[in-house]
Amino acid sequence: MSRATEYRVLVEWGDCDPAGIVFYPCYFRWFDCATDQLFDEAGLPTGELVQRYGVVGKPIAEVSSRFLAPSRYRQRLVIRTRVESWAEKRFTVLHQGYREGTLLFEGREVRFLGAPHPEHRERLRALAIPAELRRLFGD
Amino acid sequence: MSRATEYRVLVEWGDCDPAGIVFYPCYFRWFDCATDQLFDEAGLPTGELVQRYGVVGKPIAEVSSRFLAPSRYRQRLVIRTRVESWAEKRFTVLHQGYREGTLLFEGREVRFLGAPHPEHRERLRALAIPAELRRLFGD
Amino acid sequence: MSRATEYRVLVEWGDCDPAGIVFYPCYFRWFDCATDQLFDEAGLPTGELVQRYGVVGKPIAEVSSRFLAPSRYRQRLVIRTRVESWAEKRFTVLHQGYREGTLLFEGREVRFLGAPHPEHRERLRALAIPAELRRLFGD
Amino acid sequence: MSRATEYRVLVEWGDCDPAGIVFYPCYFRWFDCATDQLFDEAGLPTGELVQRYGVVGKPIAEVSSRFLAPSRYRQRLVIRTRVESWAEKRFTVLHQGYREGTLLFEGREVRFLGAPHPEHRERLRALAIPAELRRLFGD
Repeated sequence: MSRATEYRVLVEWGDCDPAGIVFYPCYFRWFDCATDQLFDEAGLPTGELVQRYGVVGKPIAEVSSRFLAPSRYRQRLVIRTRVESWAEKRFTVLHQGYREGTLLFEGREVRFLGAPHPEHRERLRALAIPAELRRLFGD
Repeated sequence: MSRATEYRVLVEWGDCDPAGIVFYPCYFRWFDCATDQLFDEAGLPTGELVQRYGVVGKPIAEVSSRFLAPSRYRQRLVIRTRVESWAEKRFTVLHQGYREGTLLFEGREVRFLGAPHPEHRERLRALAIPAELRRLFGD
Repeated sequence: MSRATEYRVLVEWGDCDPAGIVFYPCYFRWFDCATDQLFDEAGLPTGELVQRYGVVGKPIAEVSSRFLAPSRYRQRLVIRTRVESWAEKRFTVLHQGYREGTLLFEGREVRFLGAPHPEHRERLRALAIPAELRRLFGD
Repeated sequence: MSRATEYRVLVEWGDCDPAGIVFYPCYFRWFDCATDQLFDEAGLPTGELVQRYGVVGKPIAEVSSRFLAPSRYRQRLVIRTRVESWAEKRFTVLHQGYREGTLLFEGREVRFLGAPHPEHRERLRALAIPAELRRLFGD
């Protein structure tokens, strides 16, 4: 079974815009937190990941989300997060956001292990995903 | 010809993470600014949109982006933004981010005109896109 | 005894800058959350405050903070928050941030109950602080 | 004469809260940008500062601000920024925010040159401010 986590959000005043709903970039801030929590629980916090594989982190190659209903100040959300699939140099993290059992938003982050590029110092190079990393997530 | 705009970004210290690259939710903050600039230049700033159509704004139904290379502190980016397509109750805004002529990221926001829902006060209802709105964007 | 709360923070990746320390505006985001939590626990969440007193919220008149040591990714902080003093139209919220018992930062927000200004629609008018509000905080 | 800069802000949708006014941590984000612009114009951008003095940046020791009137979506602000005073290991940056000539907010950042601490790796050590740095700012 694939490892999963639940990231809990209490919508704060500063997360909301003049329409009284969550300003949409905040969802991606929460996705990033949820992914980190997933890695923490898998025993591979980002600090450890950086040291073990010589990467700068697990940056984003692609991301998407759809929003079925807005969220508002002081609502409590649960984001259910897991690695949905692995490719040779990428993995996809699925985030499903609920309030009281109703799905409100669903997003996917495609991430990679980003090492400094040997020739272009401003670019990043994607490492092959180590098998041991996949195993930590129950793959 | 479809109306377009260029939104200029100077990457700030607080936009970047411990890896020294832009924290990815910032890209969506910039997309939101670029879309607003596009509407301003079309003569329909959000304040006017809200009043004219009785909406709370132009919220997001879906959004996606892919990132070809990271951006770093003090780099200057240009985001080229235009409405890519119109549907009955939705429109898609395309954002293409460049540095010195090189495409770094490309994203799409699917937005709608969100009015208060008559029955469910926490939900929003998508209005049909008025023809005059499309015309402002050269459609 | 004055009512107090403890607001807990897990420092996230996106809270930190290229120096690997918390980007300082984040502390004020946390102060705002901590003050809201204090009001929630006093039985007067902001939504209720807005309705009861006809205000737009409890905006900031002045704020200050000093920082004794930086905070870093994945550190766990506790912010101890309470109303330090009341004036006729203002109150001061004290925030003290600790990690493992060590004080790391200390800030003060001076807030007021901000009602729409009768003559200048872009300004706010400070209401006299109701005695019942002070009582909720043990004053 | 002391060097000064003007940092220009167009208030964005995501900068504002459900009360329709700027969420106050945003002012500090702008202060940070304004200070960086001041350093850029003095010929000592942060990247150069880091390399030349072996520091992680110019972190904050203390900060304060008072707010005379709220700012709202799509208002244009000008922040006038200069180094107000120098101490042996600290300097104070003054930020004054105007809209159409009216002072709306005034803040002060007390910053230092923060080098890694030789004994406590999580702390920072304040360097003595080099005379050449002060001269760049017209002191």
